[in-house]
Amino acid sequence: MKRTSRDIRTANRYEVLRQIIAASPTSRQELAAATGLSLATVATLVGELLDLSMITEVGFEDSAGGRPRGLVAVNASGGALIGVDIAETYVHVELFDLGLNVLARAEEDVRPGESLPEQVIGHVAAVVGQVVAQAGIEGARVLGVGVSVPGQVDRDTGFCEYAPNWDWHDVPLLDLLTEHIAYPLYLDNPLRASAVAELWFGAARGRGNAVVVNLGTGVGAGLVLGGGLHRGVSNSAGEWGHTTIVLDGRVCRCGKHGCVEAYVGASGIMLNLRELSPGSPLLHQDDQTATIAALAEGLRQNDPVALGTLRDTVRYLGAGIANLVNLFNPEVIVLSSWVAAALGEPLVEEVREAVARHALPRPMAATEIVLSPIPTDPVCLGAATFALEGALQSVGQKSPKRSITPARAKTPNPR
Amino acid sequence: MKRTSRDIRTANRYEVLRQIIAASPTSRQELAAATGLSLATVATLVGELLDLSMITEVGFEDSAGGRPRGLVAVNASGGALIGVDIAETYVHVELFDLGLNVLARAEEDVRPGESLPEQVIGHVAAVVGQVVAQAGIEGARVLGVGVSVPGQVDRDTGFCEYAPNWDWHDVPLLDLLTEHIAYPLYLDNPLRASAVAELWFGAARGRGNAVVVNLGTGVGAGLVLGGGLHRGVSNSAGEWGHTTIVLDGRVCRCGKHGCVEAYVGASGIMLNLRELSPGSPLLHQDDQTATIAALAEGLRQNDPVALGTLRDTVRYLGAGIANLVNLFNPEVIVLSSWVAAALGEPLVEEVREAVARHALPRPMAATEIVLSPIPTDPVCLGAATFALEGALQSVGQKSPKRSITPARAKTPNPR
Ligand SMILES: [Zn+2]
Ligand SMILES: [Zn+2]
Repeated sequence: MKRTSRDIRTANRYEVLRQIIAASPTSRQELAAATGLSLATVATLVGELLDLSMITEVGFEDSAGGRPRGLVAVNASGGALIGVDIAETYVHVELFDLGLNVLARAEEDVRPGESLPEQVIGHVAAVVGQVVAQAGIEGARVLGVGVSVPGQVDRDTGFCEYAPNWDWHDVPLLDLLTEHIAYPLYLDNPLRASAVAELWFGAARGRGNAVVVNLGTGVGAGLVLGGGLHRGVSNSAGEWGHTTIVLDGRVCRCGKHGCVEAYVGASGIMLNLRELSPGSPLLHQDDQTATIAALAEGLRQNDPVALGTLRDTVRYLGAGIANLVNLFNPEVIVLSSWVAAALGEPLVEEVREAVARHALPRPMAATEIVLSPIPTDPVCLGAATFALEGALQSVGQKSPKRSITPARAKTPNPR
Repeated sequence: MKRTSRDIRTANRYEVLRQIIAASPTSRQELAAATGLSLATVATLVGELLDLSMITEVGFEDSAGGRPRGLVAVNASGGALIGVDIAETYVHVELFDLGLNVLARAEEDVRPGESLPEQVIGHVAAVVGQVVAQAGIEGARVLGVGVSVPGQVDRDTGFCEYAPNWDWHDVPLLDLLTEHIAYPLYLDNPLRASAVAELWFGAARGRGNAVVVNLGTGVGAGLVLGGGLHRGVSNSAGEWGHTTIVLDGRVCRCGKHGCVEAYVGASGIMLNLRELSPGSPLLHQDDQTATIAALAEGLRQNDPVALGTLRDTVRYLGAGIANLVNLFNPEVIVLSSWVAAALGEPLVEEVREAVARHALPRPMAATEIVLSPIPTDPVCLGAATFALEGALQSVGQKSPKRSITPARAKTPNPR
């Protein structure tokens, strides 16, 4: 609970940079108004960011009757950030400038058989190399690489404690990545990454309370509470996919029964389809991507089996999202990740109706339900912001004794 | 998201007073360390609280090698606070001094037929009068009355939007209370009140993330996230009792099916008992209090029907609490309210085992599950702290235009 003045200073520096990135050019006065910090504090933090060449002075604006105000903007070419979205079926990587504009992107498939950490990391290293080459930038300009892993991650030790898709347990992922990637690395998971992306650039911008529902192979919720990311005490909050919605129901890949994910994750949806119409041509055995794409196309053509599968899925999804509305009383629920993007508006419309049937009227009245408006991969974007946050902490450190180091420096070496 | 410097000052003043109440006597240095505020800020806030006679100087302590440090303590007789716990079956009221020590308490039963707001308010007015008379204090010393209502409350308008037990909809409760009670009134609900009580004095003290599970007639969760109370955007977060755990399951008094409350609220437990052993002498028809008391006594005597009913109840309760562990990743889950207090340790032990079966290992490893350690009624205590918070905001207000007024000043009068 207790934050040192150093923590607060780092958080404030990050918050000011975030505001500048979100709305360049801007004045110190606007930054003070947007952050709630005093003008003097903002001026100090802006000075630090200028010294770091992360922002630049870009001129003046007239203020009504007063002195012209100096404007600052992000120095987009002041550095590069890389976001890595390790998903169950692909590794997608994007390289950003400091304004968080995409300069390069690349992707490789992860095939069903490839479940060893070394196989997955091989893809990551290859794709990171590709985006740096594509962007044609010097390695020294890469401030950091944020890596999202579909599982539970200990950010301090750099271990992936559990990744259900590949049955990984206690994998020293950061150590393994460090053998192939020379840039500072910051691990987290897609729930946190997509929530931060919405908070900075998407549907949660300016909202104090938002829940970002990730619908992909895995399912979970990123939590924005009180204006910031809620991580929980061991960075594993948001495991909505493994909350029980049908006591003693379908078996889930986590080993429990009746989890939300077992009904609304990509393989849950495939099972809903198979139960509705076992021989449906929409069903591509062992291929989630192809099946979800076929379902999306079926919805566009009002195919009754596609519509029925959507309805069956939303029966569970609506009740599960209503649970989030009743518990968190958020301003907005954002549907994100590849399954939500593929099924699109037909999904959102069904979900809105179903949630309204299940949620209590008062929290329901306060909640909007929308698709993620972020045009690119929100997980890459969020992972890149984690790298930026890490880089800002590193530059701020003076005394090694009290410093917050990149996670890998603390990684115990089990070999 | 944006907080004005005035909001921050009010919150800091409250936080400093809270620390002084929790650990009197204390020094400004200790307060700075405990709150993360600068010594200069603490000194200013302490000065304000001294001016308000809410705290007093109580001497000096030696500091190693330095100047002796001035100590301050709460001025317990500087005012009185009243906490009102309107529950479905009783109205319990406690009167506190500023150190939040109980000076008087009184209670009246609310009988099953009494469902009109006027009937319930009649009990509240009577019991508030009793505690003031018992304590023998002047009315002018009562700084405020916090009132907890078992339902959804709009703190700004003073309306009770929904109270399921009496089927109240949009009752102008604050207006009705104001006709009978002359002290400043502050409305909220038991989820928030019990969470704040744990945060100040109970199992959530010093914890950043805690969930207080209320098990009574109604069921819900008070949320302490990031060191503070999470209210949600319309003060209705924490409705865990109405999250779905058995899709299409038992009908709940909210009208939905399969809610947690339908299985683990007092009437849900009675139904579990009836299903297990329809003619059991433990079952007191239409009397929750007597039935839960009989079950508690049965557990002490290892009565097989009592043990079976506990096991059946915990089958649902364990899965429901595991959902909270997976979603919030808290440090502690506190079991509170009268059903939890009555069933006690046998309940907690069963719950711990059941939650461990359902929750993911990583968040589970970080979570303790305990009974509320607060010896008195946590809801009264929490409601009294809301009155204290309200009183601190009122004293701080200078300009009426920007002031935060007690809720009733904003109440539209529908009559
Ligand atoms: Zn699961
Ligand atoms: Zn219900």
